[in-house]
Amino acid sequence: MSVLPKSVENVVNEFSKLPGVGPKSASRMTYHYLRSPNKDATKLGEALIQMDEKTKFCSQCFNVTDSDICDICSSTLRDHTKLCIVEEPLDVVAFEDSGIYNGLYFVLGGVISPADGITASELRFKELEERVNSVINENDTVLEIIVATNPSLEGEATASYIQEIFKTAVKEDKIHISRLAMGLPTGADLEYADRLTLKRAFEGRRDI
Amino acid sequence: MSVLPKSVENVVNEFSKLPGVGPKSASRMTYHYLRSPNKDATKLGEALIQMDEKTKFCSQCFNVTDSDICDICSSTLRDHTKLCIVEEPLDVVAFEDSGIYNGLYFVLGGVISPADGITASELRFKELEERVNSVINENDTVLEIIVATNPSLEGEATASYIQEIFKTAVKEDKIHISRLAMGLPTGADLEYADRLTLKRAFEGRRDI
Repeated sequence: MSVLPKSVENVVNEFSKLPGVGPKSASRMTYHYLRSPNKDATKLGEALIQMDEKTKFCSQCFNVTDSDICDICSSTLRDHTKLCIVEEPLDVVAFEDSGIYNGLYFVLGGVISPADGITASELRFKELEERVNSVINENDTVLEIIVATNPSLEGEATASYIQEIFKTAVKEDKIHISRLAMGLPTGADLEYADRLTLKRAFEGRRDI
Repeated sequence: MSVLPKSVENVVNEFSKLPGVGPKSASRMTYHYLRSPNKDATKLGEALIQMDEKTKFCSQCFNVTDSDICDICSSTLRDHTKLCIVEEPLDVVAFEDSGIYNGLYFVLGGVISPADGITASELRFKELEERVNSVINENDTVLEIIVATNPSLEGEATASYIQEIFKTAVKEDKIHISRLAMGLPTGADLEYADRLTLKRAFEGRRDI
């Protein structure tokens, strides 16, 4: 005989599916709601259902949005001669929070990862080409593409793939492609830096 | 300009209210659902709303349940001459998972804690008395009450308060009250045990 009523168990099960949430944490989260007097569970529940109903991908950059074209793509205040290619919508949030970038984005939806069975055809490379072409046509100047995939093996491979796609356009001076710098993060201890990071930091050394 | 659509931000806000979940974890949890293709957010959402709608407190033991009287209270297979008093519904789960107990429960709904402004009147002492009287009337034998509040200052104070309530009934041999043993937990290192735990373990030493 299970002690938990079915309706409570369902919530525990759903919470357990979250990354990094075990059965113990899932129970704790569920019981938090059972204790709360303000129908907070219903509030979260409605927010979740609304999110599933309302959010879609921006038809231009594939970031999550409530509208057809997201606020960034439709903004005239953003620099439409820069396009930053990221893996996931959360990467856009990271850039926006930092406040260092005022251009457009393109969300690939992942990276090429043969180990996980993710090939180029599963990512939005076709949509990327279309987007790049339409931005080029929109402006007269060179389009600057910043490849901001993660500094992992897969991220590197994906960056090379992007470089390959736009090879001709780069030669024709329509596009300029750069990649985020790799090196030591702020506050890092050189002593504990891994070999690859140190190698990249050394290769990327700059005159002072 | 916020990057996150309103509907996504709502979910992040609601998740952030959970104990031990900061804004970063809340975002990660939310984005997990944005990535998932199976409308998992809606599943959790509906489970939460259902839980708020369906669960109530058992009218006898005040554990959470889907029905008017919970499965434990209504079971004839349980020992109705034992009543274990716990603070929270999760404590019932802990006992049931351990499989060591086959009696009834009573959920107090907390402990007396003047520091948090929780006085005896906010807990279910009146309901406890009623429950105890009805169980006594139901059986011919002595009712064994096991006080299983947490081994904290507040838990101790609450245990004393319960003892006080049933003083007369204990004298009249209608009730026998015991408290969970305190001492060293399994696998503990004596060297690192705190003073109070060691004191209780010493006081509670048993012949071997």
